[in-house]
Amino acid sequence: MASSIGQNIKMTIFGQSHSPAIGVTIDGLPAGIEIDSEKLAGFMARRAPGKDRFSTMRKEADEVQFLSGLTDGKTNGAPLCAAIFNKDQHPKDYSAIWDTPRPGHADYAARVKYSSFNDPTGGGHFSGRLTAPLCIAGGILMQWLEAKGITIGAHIASVHGVEDEKFDRVNVTANQLNSLKQKAFTCIDDEKAEKMQAEILAAKGDCDSVGGTIECAVVGLPVGIGEPMFGGLESRIAEAVFGIPAVKGLEFGAGFEAANMYGSENNDEYYCDENGEIRTRTNNCGGILGGISNSMPLIFKVAFKPTPSIAKTQNTVSFENKTDTTLNIKGRHDPCIVQRAVPCVEAAAAVVIADLFISHLKD
Amino acid sequence: MASSIGQNIKMTIFGQSHSPAIGVTIDGLPAGIEIDSEKLAGFMARRAPGKDRFSTMRKEADEVQFLSGLTDGKTNGAPLCAAIFNKDQHPKDYSAIWDTPRPGHADYAARVKYSSFNDPTGGGHFSGRLTAPLCIAGGILMQWLEAKGITIGAHIASVHGVEDEKFDRVNVTANQLNSLKQKAFTCIDDEKAEKMQAEILAAKGDCDSVGGTIECAVVGLPVGIGEPMFGGLESRIAEAVFGIPAVKGLEFGAGFEAANMYGSENNDEYYCDENGEIRTRTNNCGGILGGISNSMPLIFKVAFKPTPSIAKTQNTVSFENKTDTTLNIKGRHDPCIVQRAVPCVEAAAAVVIADLFISHLKD
Amino acid sequence: MASSIGQNIKMTIFGQSHSPAIGVTIDGLPAGIEIDSEKLAGFMARRAPGKDRFSTMRKEADEVQFLSGLTDGKTNGAPLCAAIFNKDQHPKDYSAIWDTPRPGHADYAARVKYSSFNDPTGGGHFSGRLTAPLCIAGGILMQWLEAKGITIGAHIASVHGVEDEKFDRVNVTANQLNSLKQKAFTCIDDEKAEKMQAEILAAKGDCDSVGGTIECAVVGLPVGIGEPMFGGLESRIAEAVFGIPAVKGLEFGAGFEAANMYGSENNDEYYCDENGEIRTRTNNCGGILGGISNSMPLIFKVAFKPTPSIAKTQNTVSFENKTDTTLNIKGRHDPCIVQRAVPCVEAAAAVVIADLFISHLKD
Amino acid sequence: MASSIGQNIKMTIFGQSHSPAIGVTIDGLPAGIEIDSEKLAGFMARRAPGKDRFSTMRKEADEVQFLSGLTDGKTNGAPLCAAIFNKDQHPKDYSAIWDTPRPGHADYAARVKYSSFNDPTGGGHFSGRLTAPLCIAGGILMQWLEAKGITIGAHIASVHGVEDEKFDRVNVTANQLNSLKQKAFTCIDDEKAEKMQAEILAAKGDCDSVGGTIECAVVGLPVGIGEPMFGGLESRIAEAVFGIPAVKGLEFGAGFEAANMYGSENNDEYYCDENGEIRTRTNNCGGILGGISNSMPLIFKVAFKPTPSIAKTQNTVSFENKTDTTLNIKGRHDPCIVQRAVPCVEAAAAVVIADLFISHLKD
Repeated sequence: MASSIGQNIKMTIFGQSHSPAIGVTIDGLPAGIEIDSEKLAGFMARRAPGKDRFSTMRKEADEVQFLSGLTDGKTNGAPLCAAIFNKDQHPKDYSAIWDTPRPGHADYAARVKYSSFNDPTGGGHFSGRLTAPLCIAGGILMQWLEAKGITIGAHIASVHGVEDEKFDRVNVTANQLNSLKQKAFTCIDDEKAEKMQAEILAAKGDCDSVGGTIECAVVGLPVGIGEPMFGGLESRIAEAVFGIPAVKGLEFGAGFEAANMYGSENNDEYYCDENGEIRTRTNNCGGILGGISNSMPLIFKVAFKPTPSIAKTQNTVSFENKTDTTLNIKGRHDPCIVQRAVPCVEAAAAVVIADLFISHLKD
Repeated sequence: MASSIGQNIKMTIFGQSHSPAIGVTIDGLPAGIEIDSEKLAGFMARRAPGKDRFSTMRKEADEVQFLSGLTDGKTNGAPLCAAIFNKDQHPKDYSAIWDTPRPGHADYAARVKYSSFNDPTGGGHFSGRLTAPLCIAGGILMQWLEAKGITIGAHIASVHGVEDEKFDRVNVTANQLNSLKQKAFTCIDDEKAEKMQAEILAAKGDCDSVGGTIECAVVGLPVGIGEPMFGGLESRIAEAVFGIPAVKGLEFGAGFEAANMYGSENNDEYYCDENGEIRTRTNNCGGILGGISNSMPLIFKVAFKPTPSIAKTQNTVSFENKTDTTLNIKGRHDPCIVQRAVPCVEAAAAVVIADLFISHLKD
Repeated sequence: MASSIGQNIKMTIFGQSHSPAIGVTIDGLPAGIEIDSEKLAGFMARRAPGKDRFSTMRKEADEVQFLSGLTDGKTNGAPLCAAIFNKDQHPKDYSAIWDTPRPGHADYAARVKYSSFNDPTGGGHFSGRLTAPLCIAGGILMQWLEAKGITIGAHIASVHGVEDEKFDRVNVTANQLNSLKQKAFTCIDDEKAEKMQAEILAAKGDCDSVGGTIECAVVGLPVGIGEPMFGGLESRIAEAVFGIPAVKGLEFGAGFEAANMYGSENNDEYYCDENGEIRTRTNNCGGILGGISNSMPLIFKVAFKPTPSIAKTQNTVSFENKTDTTLNIKGRHDPCIVQRAVPCVEAAAAVVIADLFISHLKD
Repeated sequence: MASSIGQNIKMTIFGQSHSPAIGVTIDGLPAGIEIDSEKLAGFMARRAPGKDRFSTMRKEADEVQFLSGLTDGKTNGAPLCAAIFNKDQHPKDYSAIWDTPRPGHADYAARVKYSSFNDPTGGGHFSGRLTAPLCIAGGILMQWLEAKGITIGAHIASVHGVEDEKFDRVNVTANQLNSLKQKAFTCIDDEKAEKMQAEILAAKGDCDSVGGTIECAVVGLPVGIGEPMFGGLESRIAEAVFGIPAVKGLEFGAGFEAANMYGSENNDEYYCDENGEIRTRTNNCGGILGGISNSMPLIFKVAFKPTPSIAKTQNTVSFENKTDTTLNIKGRHDPCIVQRAVPCVEAAAAVVIADLFISHLKD
């Protein structure tokens, strides 16, 4: 189903930008996972809006309330339902978009699909706000995976063309991934972070927005995670990652660059390290061969388009009148969502890895 | 499941490179689809090996035998099973790889996952040969979609950096897509096709291989195809496309370029055309907003890594001895698989679009 | 997944007997369904406890709160989440069962399955209380189906051997089904209802409980609803109905009696009625042939075991000590749950019929 | 999907009564299962027609050909596809039914559902012949489960009211189940077997048919198999069992009898046996509480209607003319299918138990 993902751990996200609550139901979670609420709140805070001048001023505490699935703070085998109740609602800001679809948003397509029944306020179910429940699920599962020795972390790889240093695909470590999570603006190179922020502020000043890319790594994966064909790590991660609004591209390892390489360059040759472990000297495959983890770090990169909501006047149409018109989007919007999307990408990866990890336990 | 895909039309691919047969079972196919066998054979032939000097010499007629699901050449509502029986088997060529995993292949990961029970011959279930059943399903569904006014077509966008002309994302037509299918080497620009072929032959001469990219378009899609979140067109197409061996990247519309753009550049502004239809002047979103089709052509690009099987000596390990060694891959291999992958990409798109189109019928 | 059901309309039930809330997420609900809240509350009230002396005294208002999926009282295409917040919690009543599993309950199996992490209070996720969210989903879908001309209704067919009149399998009507819903104790024959109630009170007086059966009918179904094999009406209804706690048997039409009949007796012969409609003179098949609706009323009967929670002293074991012991169950329990289960059976049918009806729309 | 079942092990059945082949694709089968072909052939033979005068004379060798998924006779992790090629086809016998639907068959419903595209010959995809692929899957999985200590076996519990002895629900053993499999006519009590056969022959002599019931047991199940709600053993077994043509009823343990019992009678009290194992003294729950196995034998009973194909003249209609007419069914048909359905019920149970057993491995 559309808003569900997973085979062993099935997650269903519910809510609209301005519904009474948004949340997630997770069925199939192993019993006995102890949830560190403070750590989860910290994870959610990385996504939360309103925390700096690069983000929307809409302030949502994003306080997670567990409705079911926990006993004494541990999962009990029953479906876990967690909700965030919406407090700071300004649906009136969005009334104009009902007839004049915003360029770059789902408004027009959703209006046709659901006809007049669609909820257009704030993007409804298509709102980026729905990544908060994704982060609840991802945050919980990252804690579980961490306990199993698997660490997921990401950084802003670029904003509007300003590029951060890349992960060392062969040697990236859990420590590096975890220390990145402490940063307010998640770049490896702090100077690049400054430049990116300058780009964002410049765009904001121009009533415009910018896009960027996020690079994500998973370390500590056992060999053999993932299934053949459509159950492979690439397919499954893609399914989750493209569920994040604004994602328009995804590549694993060398990705699109591999298309320009010779086989002899791109192939990652095996060797035995000092511990007798089989590894590869390069990692152009991003840790995945045949859809299955191969002992090397799993690496992928995600492209985010610029925030479609911009303050500039834009051309659009009147849906009812079938005439051209213009639109001025009001309300509070992020001039760039890439910095807030970092935990969302981690969460998407966590949801998939945890699901496949359970299949692996039974292999 | 790993080798299955689809909600309304569920396709399961079976077979290994050298199993008695490979094939596909398709459950949920609407009754009454008339299959033009000749057209299907023509579609399969575009993927078939051994037809020119750019491809492997392994000659497989890829003759499709229908085991069930048809009455008088039309689908009858029962699951359709179609098989290709393997005739030209040379499993002896692959015996060495059992202990010495081939770089860039699934051998090592599969060996760990399935332990000694894995079928390593020719890549087993991970073989590119398994794209033939995908093409059976895709070829049938493209015929059905064509009858519904939806046309899918692709071309080689690049080989080893030599780039073909791109699709006009706004104006690409069904006619253009269909005429491309007549070409032996599927490029828009025939001069670029020559250069690409030269690259491939050069790599072959060096006992090496090259990768490339494929651009695919879907025209004639009604507005409203696709579901929110993980059921969106991007997620679903990604799930299918990354199931094709050697795919390492995927982008929709402007894709990774969008990450470098301003919102005001990237947003596709709406206007009403002379027929009162709502359209956009640009198509950076690749015809998809919020996961849903928006009336414009659906456009995506896929990155293929170079064929991992190369004749050059490569470093690898002995799986059993945990020691370094070298490997010379024998057998017949494509110096580039991109030209043969064009119908596979079309087929992957067809499988997803047909599945989502059925959901659309009930909206 | 365990707590999910459905292909087109996927419903996930969450909650435990004493979790902060119980509820349901429904993904895939058609947009534009207007929910009559009062009618839904009336439906929920039929299941609610504490309304008479035949039921537990636990009083739950079962007030439904919609967290998402509605705009102006109509479904908007986004997943609908509805919750009932638990107010009247007495988890202390259940503390003893942690070590001494109650006969006839899931306690022991769940304790082994989820080890010490299981929530045993009130049966946790296995509680009959979780049928309330099923009724939310079913109540909404029955409203939708009613608008499509499909009516679902059930009655108590027996309690502890006292049998109600049966449905006329050929001629049962929507009016009859709807008028049954007005009764406080849902029998066709009010005298039999009196006798059943006497049986229940007698069992209650003996610190015991009784079981019974429920017969359900669906009228107005178009021909062709249901899919072959495991997607047939019987398989799908069974999947839903056996998800209701305490259900131990299910039969369609003549059911187990058919096993004692000749083919010439059991076969339902076709004829054309005065309107030229094809119908059958008997309905031993319960309106289903090959898993598919055949124009006649769909009829099935469900067996409920007696409530396992009884006030009588019972033999059990100490889980930890592995010794025999006895148990006195305290708390408030139904001496019979059959009368409250009538809307649950209707809801289970509604969930399945609605799901299959959507598939039918696209046939 | 309709013809698919399973979460971890997904089985898809394909074929029609007279298609070139019928078969099954099984995705998710653990690697390393060694298939004893002779034992599988023996299992298939128990279902095969034409072996005695109680069954149809249609002789199908039911020779299983493996198309994929095996290496050296062991599963290799890739989807297993097995087919039976149809040799003895007499589709001409069935031509009349195209316009005059057979009472008790899916003809009419399927004709409406798939309109003129339906394959009516021999029931098409609705044919009992499609239980042969189910038996392939079940036969393989029973071998695997046997190696894990889990044994499945069934017997004819009744034919046309003549009842066999019942399983001792508490003490039934693997040995008893396996020895039953050696019998030509699978009853516990051979005298009752004689009487049943007399009933079948009498019905045959009258150009009629009879139904019956099958009781199935699973022993050796670990505690904790099955999931809550719709993932419970009852729901899952029901989904599979009702996929077998002619099944109209299903009950677990005491089943419908439990509806007539007091709670104090029906509850199975726990005790610790001499080995300190927790068991129950009765087994009215059929080894399942809350959908989960509880250490006792799993017991269920299935009702089969009489074979709908009878030689007697029957009333029916002309589909096209919408007029009443009569029908004489020709061809070869079983006067009773219960004796052949015994392995089918075992297979249905095996498919479900194996699937849930894999989930259990990861709990």
